[in-house]
Amino acid sequence: MLQSQLFTKTRKEAPKDEVAKNAQLLIRAGYIHKEMAGVYSYLPLGLRVMNNIVQIIREEMNAIGGEEVALTALQDRKIWETTGRWSDDVVSSWFKTKLKNGSELGLSFTHEEPLTALMRDHIHSYRDLPRYVYQFQTKFRNEERAKSGIMRGREFLMKDLYSFSKNLKDHEAFYEKTKKAYVNIWKRLGLGDKTYVTFASGGSFSKYSHEFQTVDETGEDVIYVDEKLKIAVNKEVLTDDVLKDLGLNRKSLVEKRAVEVGNIFNLGTRFSDAFGLTYVDESGNKKPVVMGSYGIGPGRVMGAIVETLSDENGIVWPESVAPFRVHLVLVEGKDRGVARKEANELYELLGQEGIETLYDDRDVRAGEKFADADLIGIPWRIVVSEKTITAGAHELKNRSTGKIEHLAEKELIAKLK
Amino acid sequence: MLQSQLFTKTRKEAPKDEVAKNAQLLIRAGYIHKEMAGVYSYLPLGLRVMNNIVQIIREEMNAIGGEEVALTALQDRKIWETTGRWSDDVVSSWFKTKLKNGSELGLSFTHEEPLTALMRDHIHSYRDLPRYVYQFQTKFRNEERAKSGIMRGREFLMKDLYSFSKNLKDHEAFYEKTKKAYVNIWKRLGLGDKTYVTFASGGSFSKYSHEFQTVDETGEDVIYVDEKLKIAVNKEVLTDDVLKDLGLNRKSLVEKRAVEVGNIFNLGTRFSDAFGLTYVDESGNKKPVVMGSYGIGPGRVMGAIVETLSDENGIVWPESVAPFRVHLVLVEGKDRGVARKEANELYELLGQEGIETLYDDRDVRAGEKFADADLIGIPWRIVVSEKTITAGAHELKNRSTGKIEHLAEKELIAKLK
Repeated sequence: MLQSQLFTKTRKEAPKDEVAKNAQLLIRAGYIHKEMAGVYSYLPLGLRVMNNIVQIIREEMNAIGGEEVALTALQDRKIWETTGRWSDDVVSSWFKTKLKNGSELGLSFTHEEPLTALMRDHIHSYRDLPRYVYQFQTKFRNEERAKSGIMRGREFLMKDLYSFSKNLKDHEAFYEKTKKAYVNIWKRLGLGDKTYVTFASGGSFSKYSHEFQTVDETGEDVIYVDEKLKIAVNKEVLTDDVLKDLGLNRKSLVEKRAVEVGNIFNLGTRFSDAFGLTYVDESGNKKPVVMGSYGIGPGRVMGAIVETLSDENGIVWPESVAPFRVHLVLVEGKDRGVARKEANELYELLGQEGIETLYDDRDVRAGEKFADADLIGIPWRIVVSEKTITAGAHELKNRSTGKIEHLAEKELIAKLK
Repeated sequence: MLQSQLFTKTRKEAPKDEVAKNAQLLIRAGYIHKEMAGVYSYLPLGLRVMNNIVQIIREEMNAIGGEEVALTALQDRKIWETTGRWSDDVVSSWFKTKLKNGSELGLSFTHEEPLTALMRDHIHSYRDLPRYVYQFQTKFRNEERAKSGIMRGREFLMKDLYSFSKNLKDHEAFYEKTKKAYVNIWKRLGLGDKTYVTFASGGSFSKYSHEFQTVDETGEDVIYVDEKLKIAVNKEVLTDDVLKDLGLNRKSLVEKRAVEVGNIFNLGTRFSDAFGLTYVDESGNKKPVVMGSYGIGPGRVMGAIVETLSDENGIVWPESVAPFRVHLVLVEGKDRGVARKEANELYELLGQEGIETLYDDRDVRAGEKFADADLIGIPWRIVVSEKTITAGAHELKNRSTGKIEHLAEKELIAKLK
């Protein structure tokens, strides 16, 4: 797209009340807008990144048999009273609102209750199992403080998948499958090296749950990493018994701060018992469905990428999530028409080759364009100027490594395709 | 996809409290789930239809220069006090909620205020205009009654585009462009014949606004249609003066009930004045930005399609929005393996040819499968049975016309591609 058409502008300073590095950079580069503490709108570049992250997660969820739905934000009190989670004393992060007739509604902070209730219409027999249902849905959490930018918002997108299995054995097999899908996701999102499967506290139905923690010095969690085994333990469960159970040695663990980008959880029959979600098995016996839940926060992922990969000049996107693959920068000299004509032609060619490009066709100084390109953080920058035309080669810069190459058009296209 | 894997089941009866035909059929066919009055979740088939509708609208909005964003549901009281729309006496459909510190927040019922405030960061000069910004975003409206299914919900998706122009002339040119884009949209959605540009009440900044009304006997609006001129007038502005102004003759108007599927509105400088959204023009003078708003409810469109195109056996989707193009139905006879093998192969072939297919591979009676296929309403039904194998031709039925053809594989693929 033409940058002259992009409505967002970069800015030198983030709002003074914004203390999180991820939000500071994303606001300055025009990806997001802060509406209130913990509440951010996504602008065109930000929405492109978000959609890329969502699509990667979606592909991996579909690959393990997930079926996508979209549940509602407004929540019926009755449903939540069934599990005892309606009370603000039990769930402190509820936002509540009211219908005209005075009856209270909640805003979804998660969706175990409505989905379990809904699945009673569709699960009756062993033939109807297993089922894996997921969505990308806005969650609302009434956080006391919201100081982590898009990494802990009061309103945020979440991918939540829920599994419905016949028994613990089937549940566990799917649980392991999801773990692998999650590892694929971090790899594809460019966070593979920094993200650890982390043992955390379980619940009534299993010893542990599993978090996926991305190492980052601003993270809210503290984990203990065994770098050789590529696993970690959350501080909350770090005891001698747990270490022994997991075959870990305290001496080989390194303390790190980290961000929880995903988690998976065995829900057992807690929700199916509460809602009477049962099925008739092969022998004609009624049995409760065994459930699991599997979350990822795409906004938190986006924040973690910005926190961990950016440098002093701005954001550095992995290719898989970048809003564009190429940032084409026109630098006009004295003979204005010449460089612009060349850049226009290259922009058209890149389009024909299917290489998504943001083309900085604006009439502003070169220095400002370069600073904006660094701040916005698109993986490849191409400069077209009178100098590059004279040299007969385009200048290609990698945002991550800073390496500059000069390539003839054919080589350039071959490299970027 | 394999129907045996689809988690939703059809049902004979809709919930007793559901009075709208659109929601009754969509619930029975497994497209949506009713959470509460006016609050519906979208299940896999429903989400597919919704995504198809959204994508058609998105393409047309991009074609006229729209840039997509995603604003928030939670709304800051201060922003809305700026235009006097915070008070429940002024806007009766607010849902309100509270932060922990007691300060009130609203849930978005529209987005003029936050977007106008936001655009102050990005519009400064005539060079920054025009801008066209849109989103698909969940709106919340605290309706007193909610009896129209997905056609008037308390929580629903809306496409809202806002235009920012230098002056009235530029505004009007874009307004006309949007009108044409909207006409394209109804045509692509299969509602072209039934949908009329309708003159409705304007506001401080223009004599009329324009609604797009789809004729439907259950519609909430009454319009007067000139079938020859293909335009209509909303009952609320039907006066002799208006008829004269529009060059219409009362005698040639027919009264019809209709559903408002879209509207476009000249906002003038109401919001830019309130928020100080100005720009510096070519001569160095500060001027207010002229705005317009352009809405479409994708859920209401989906409801209108169901209301107007369904028949006594179920839903009839236009090809452009159908969840799948083909419903492949396996009918097994005595020699079970034969028909299943043939159907499996055809399913694979359809996939290779890029023809999206729901394959009813379930082990249930043929009559049940046919009833489900009619209810679900996919445009083309193919039956594979021992009979069709013996005949050497597949049975192809058009859901809309009921016409049945018998085609050899090659002809079948050629027809559906």
